Amino acid sequence: MSGTVLALSGGVGGAKLALGLSRVLAPGTLTVVANTGDDFRHLGLAVSPDVDTLVYTLAGLADPQRGWGRRDESWHFMDALESLGGETWFRIGDADLAMHVERTHRLAAGHTLGQVTHAVVSRLGIAARIVPMSDDAVATRLRTDDGWLDFQDYFVRRRCAPAVRAVAYAGADIARPAEALREGLAGASLRAVIVCPSNPLLSVEPMLALPGVRDALAACPAPVVAVSPVIAGQAVKGPTVKLMRDLGLPASAAGVARRYAGLIDALLVDAADAEAVAEVGIEPVIARILMDDLEQREALARTVLATAAQLATLPVAERLATRTAAGRHGARP
Amino acid sequence: MSGTVLALSGGVGGAKLALGLSRVLAPGTLTVVANTGDDFRHLGLAVSPDVDTLVYTLAGLADPQRGWGRRDESWHFMDALESLGGETWFRIGDADLAMHVERTHRLAAGHTLGQVTHAVVSRLGIAARIVPMSDDAVATRLRTDDGWLDFQDYFVRRRCAPAVRAVAYAGADIARPAEALREGLAGASLRAVIVCPSNPLLSVEPMLALPGVRDALAACPAPVVAVSPVIAGQAVKGPTVKLMRDLGLPASAAGVARRYAGLIDALLVDAADAEAVAEVGIEPVIARILMDDLEQREALARTVLATAAQLATLPVAERLATRTAAGRHGARP
Repeated sequence: MSGTVLALSGGVGGAKLALGLSRVLAPGTLTVVANTGDDFRHLGLAVSPDVDTLVYTLAGLADPQRGWGRRDESWHFMDALESLGGETWFRIGDADLAMHVERTHRLAAGHTLGQVTHAVVSRLGIAARIVPMSDDAVATRLRTDDGWLDFQDYFVRRRCAPAVRAVAYAGADIARPAEALREGLAGASLRAVIVCPSNPLLSVEPMLALPGVRDALAACPAPVVAVSPVIAGQAVKGPTVKLMRDLGLPASAAGVARRYAGLIDALLVDAADAEAVAEVGIEPVIARILMDDLEQREALARTVLATAAQLATLPVAERLATRTAAGRHGARP
Repeated sequence: MSGTVLALSGGVGGAKLALGLSRVLAPGTLTVVANTGDDFRHLGLAVSPDVDTLVYTLAGLADPQRGWGRRDESWHFMDALESLGGETWFRIGDADLAMHVERTHRLAAGHTLGQVTHAVVSRLGIAARIVPMSDDAVATRLRTDDGWLDFQDYFVRRRCAPAVRAVAYAGADIARPAEALREGLAGASLRAVIVCPSNPLLSVEPMLALPGVRDALAACPAPVVAVSPVIAGQAVKGPTVKLMRDLGLPASAAGVARRYAGLIDALLVDAADAEAVAEVGIEPVIARILMDDLEQREALARTVLATAAQLATLPVAERLATRTAAGRHGARP
């Protein structure tokens, strides 16, 4: 089975599957579109957390425990910054800092975020393409009981403590989606779209909020397969469950299915969640969606691709009709 | 003897004497004006080499061997930057980087270089004031056989190899001197001006090129005492001798005396250089001007201050007349 694969990913969980995909797919066939809604300026530096987590993970440089940043990291910059009275709530390691300084420098020189990312990906010898969802700024913001918060303020500084009442993607309505999204979703050679096990509201929906992307995904002729970031009511990582609860959404794989209804053809879930997902009208595919080690990441990637291959045996019209019907069904409260 | 002391300094050699002065003077009485002609943007960061060498030296953080940067420094940022394909000819340590990032960030927020420096000096508990010579950009540039070069390109990247034909201080004619220079030189409480053992052309004359500073120094009622950065035809540190030779200047303490004729009242020199300096019309004061350790830095600081105190016993008019006469005498080829 040939063709290209497009993966939509946030940070840690998504990056694990992206790594698995990059290892089981032929070099040059995988494009990972990274959420940039978490991007922000810190200390004047352009920080792109999800892009970097993907880059570090696919380059084998990611810290295996921490969930962000680089392995074997040192913190002399932060210590010195603290001694100078600088801001220390957002921690940047010495080696990680090189990415932010170099990116900021190249952006100031007129390069796009996509160009900067491409250069780094090439330099580090990563076989997949990693593409920021847009070169234009999009900022995920959260309306909480403490007012509207920038994402990193909510996520890092306040450790997701404030209850979230609404999520907005500032700038998304006028940001131009990356070509990999705009043209990739309609590409004739597209074999599958994979929605990685990332937070639907914080990592995937910022992409869907870009002009035309939601419609292009809904109409995508290739199979669209998602992996649930929630197992039996528990987020594998991060604030997914708390956030969904805050917003009054079902904090479950079925809740995830509902967010994606009309956009995907199948959702990989834990056995415990299959029935509830089926009730939404999305085809559940039972799989081991925890990825504790590299072997499990590759195994899940193979399952995802096999699911897509299975779906690809159906006529496109039939698949799209089912997808659309699930959208009508799943959208019901 | 009370009053304030104003020291004019470049990097390493000047900073050693500044440290000695800061230790023998009462807290709050020393102001060190730092050359900023070496300042530049690197990787988008605002780098102020002489300011930082002074800050690190007076805070006890300077590397004792390397001559720049911080002691116990690590280089993980540089290693990572190299792996990303970034520029590595100008090396920045992990802890040193905090200074550049924080400065760049505060400058972008609208602070002046003087304000940023003051904040850092206070935070690090330095007893002296360290004042950039101007908040406006001045760039020392060198006309060489390879064309006009920026200072760091000449100094670091090309290791002072190209022969220098002329030196220019771009922007100096429209830069506003720091208040410590403008008003400090005429201050009623001024006890002495110390011209530190820095490169005359690269570290001290950028200050003198600022509007009004040369005239203010020439007319300064307080004693002005300089320390030669050259001993018996050898620069203690850096490219002073090579640069003076390139420019066809006498590469000696007498050559230094000639650059300062009309501006200073005495020059501390090695015994070997005293006679030649006297011939320029500047009073030579024989001293151990090498400063290998802290004790020698304090000893030289005491000698400098004692020289100023001795000069202060003369009537101002007499001192200024002698200074002016030396200017006419020393300016002869």
